[in-house]
Amino acid sequence: MAHSDSVSVRVFSLNCWGIHYLSKQCAQRYAMIGEMLCKEEHDIVLLQEVWSEKDYLFLKQKLACCHPHSHYFKSGVIGSGLAIFSKHRIHDTFLYRYSLNGYPYMAHHGDWFGGKAVGMAILSIGSLTANVYVTHLHAEYCRDKDSYLPHRVVQAWELQQFVRHTSAAADVVILGGDLNMHPQDLGNRLLKASTGLRDSYLESAKFDGCEDGITLIADNPFISKKTLIPFEKGIRIDYILFKGSSKADIYCDFMSTSKGSVPDHPFPYSDHETLTAKLRLEAHAPAETESDRTSKNQDSAAGKVAELVDIVTEARTEVKVGLHCAERMRYTATRTGVMGLALLVLELAIAAVPWLALGAEQPFPRTSFYMLAALCFAILLTTSLLYIFYTMELKSLQGAEDQMRLAVGSLQEKLRGFPLAQPHSTQRKPPEGLEPSAFDPEE
Amino acid sequence: MAHSDSVSVRVFSLNCWGIHYLSKQCAQRYAMIGEMLCKEEHDIVLLQEVWSEKDYLFLKQKLACCHPHSHYFKSGVIGSGLAIFSKHRIHDTFLYRYSLNGYPYMAHHGDWFGGKAVGMAILSIGSLTANVYVTHLHAEYCRDKDSYLPHRVVQAWELQQFVRHTSAAADVVILGGDLNMHPQDLGNRLLKASTGLRDSYLESAKFDGCEDGITLIADNPFISKKTLIPFEKGIRIDYILFKGSSKADIYCDFMSTSKGSVPDHPFPYSDHETLTAKLRLEAHAPAETESDRTSKNQDSAAGKVAELVDIVTEARTEVKVGLHCAERMRYTATRTGVMGLALLVLELAIAAVPWLALGAEQPFPRTSFYMLAALCFAILLTTSLLYIFYTMELKSLQGAEDQMRLAVGSLQEKLRGFPLAQPHSTQRKPPEGLEPSAFDPEE
Repeated sequence: MAHSDSVSVRVFSLNCWGIHYLSKQCAQRYAMIGEMLCKEEHDIVLLQEVWSEKDYLFLKQKLACCHPHSHYFKSGVIGSGLAIFSKHRIHDTFLYRYSLNGYPYMAHHGDWFGGKAVGMAILSIGSLTANVYVTHLHAEYCRDKDSYLPHRVVQAWELQQFVRHTSAAADVVILGGDLNMHPQDLGNRLLKASTGLRDSYLESAKFDGCEDGITLIADNPFISKKTLIPFEKGIRIDYILFKGSSKADIYCDFMSTSKGSVPDHPFPYSDHETLTAKLRLEAHAPAETESDRTSKNQDSAAGKVAELVDIVTEARTEVKVGLHCAERMRYTATRTGVMGLALLVLELAIAAVPWLALGAEQPFPRTSFYMLAALCFAILLTTSLLYIFYTMELKSLQGAEDQMRLAVGSLQEKLRGFPLAQPHSTQRKPPEGLEPSAFDPEE
Repeated sequence: MAHSDSVSVRVFSLNCWGIHYLSKQCAQRYAMIGEMLCKEEHDIVLLQEVWSEKDYLFLKQKLACCHPHSHYFKSGVIGSGLAIFSKHRIHDTFLYRYSLNGYPYMAHHGDWFGGKAVGMAILSIGSLTANVYVTHLHAEYCRDKDSYLPHRVVQAWELQQFVRHTSAAADVVILGGDLNMHPQDLGNRLLKASTGLRDSYLESAKFDGCEDGITLIADNPFISKKTLIPFEKGIRIDYILFKGSSKADIYCDFMSTSKGSVPDHPFPYSDHETLTAKLRLEAHAPAETESDRTSKNQDSAAGKVAELVDIVTEARTEVKVGLHCAERMRYTATRTGVMGLALLVLELAIAAVPWLALGAEQPFPRTSFYMLAALCFAILLTTSLLYIFYTMELKSLQGAEDQMRLAVGSLQEKLRGFPLAQPHSTQRKPPEGLEPSAFDPEE
């Protein structure tokens, strides 16, 4: 293995919690974040929940010297909230909007209005091409009864598709963001198993930060402790993931998180903790990967494919649960709409009676009539909108389910091609270095 | 050049015009299409406007023997209308929904409800990996005053991004569909210049079909001749595009279109003509591409980059026009909303007068009062929805404009790296064989 080249890259990720008028100390925190980023001079800064473009422009101005390259990803009504700042030149960017993202009528959760997405930026780091992804998945509001789980699983599915399909030309892949998933959650396993991305917290040679790498901690003054129950100390839902390629290896030498408070400041940067990973990129000649495919490697590859089949099957089940739920909701909307229509027809019939009995001058209850008619129209309008919305949800869920079925079929086909398939490998830590995706047709 | 392997692939594309109850002879036409596809046994069939999943399932059943692999791309309220049938195994699929797609209140144009998208399928053809794309862009309803032009340009921009970023691992790329753009239209030039895709009609060694390769012809009985003015004979808006890679060359040996009528049938397959391209794929050793980069090649590459800069700049201008338009529309919606609110306040003030003057029993015009209030609410609701919609449109347009600016900057940087840049190369036909994208960072 000839290590001709070694580059160190410091990657930073933070969910900035930048909801104007709702997030506490927003302006002061942005000033603190800008100051810290200016001082730390990371190579790549990945920010989430920068909801206001003004805040992005403020940071852009502040970081103009140390991070001359930046991009703000626009989408949805409010925006994706995603931003990237870089020391290295950004050659190209691309945005993928998730097809599902909560419900518009759950306005207090607000996810739908944000237009959640994954942003990609292609950077040149030395001689290497790095595909850098930043994303923010749908929040989990109640772990026991998580009605958004199918949405988040579909988002994780689309995220892994996007990363897999767009990173073929990349020498290294770096993904940072608030995944809103615990380390062992379905979507997280799906993402890691299908892309081959590795978790810098688990891979890091050294770590300095909160216990268990948690990024949403109970000690943070902006967090109500109730939301963390039953995780007393906190949860790990922000990640920096990475993988190499046949042209470059990637290692994590050091990883750190902030610990709830910032020295000399009365409050932390955000309700999430900051993440910093010091990655080492080592370019090498691409030759040795092909010859490396021994039978031992094939065994481990077969195990990984079998594991992925299990995970995708689990994800399919979850999506099917979502499908049933969406179907039931659409049915309810339809039934309510029909009732509204029946009420309207009934009302018109009642109104027609005095109109037909021309002579009899009975007192007609105009006010109630108009009120009731308005109510009927409101019901019809709302149920129509809901019907359209649930239809769109159904289509997206069905689309994901179709793709998953196809993927499982394709993986099982591949599994049959291996001489010794291990159906239930529980191997967790993949070997370091090259980490190809299990979907790769050439494998 | 060692041609170790040569495969012939027949690709078919058709806009099926499958709007139930609106499209004429829908069921009969699908039966005809199914019969023809069964007989012709193309390798890859790309269909657009298959709006009903039932029709897809009908075709799937009919083509089960000759096309065992298929996928229907689901999206939006109605669906994307995109379907693919294949003789070769489909390993993986991915769907990208365009961020802009007309206006929901232009219901008679219907594009918004369709959820227009580009679908990708990864196929194994012999030893080669083929990325096959099928898409359908926003229709052009009035060429002189095309209010959808910015939307279509953004769709073309996103289409080239999607193809470019997802096809790096592909040996060959094939794209088919109804682009709703004439050969020399901005979006078409943008797509071809940035991806390196080549037009099978222009590249084909032999052609049999309508004059000038037109696919929407005046002789088609389903087309009202008025819509084609000033193009008396018809227009060419359906395409099969392709490109090779460093691992395979691709050529078009024969291309054909239907000519308006079908023998032994009273009407054609659709309002569009069918397209069939016979492509020849030749795998070769990947070695010789690197050594091929002589100074002459650099000159032509510089010319191509300069051409692409011009095209992207033109596209940016178009997007800016759309931005101004969307801003004006949002402003109008806001102003109307404010007027509706003012009217409501005024009405409430008027209503308060008799209520305050308790004693005076004046006749209060209840009916007009409620009618006016309902009107005010309707105005407020409509303008709010429009405001949200135009904000989303603005964000998407701004996002595309940002990405285009970045791309132009990146291209100009690259242009400076060439020893002899030719700012205005008008070279049309690229050299056959490898056709790299001008955006490639390694070039």
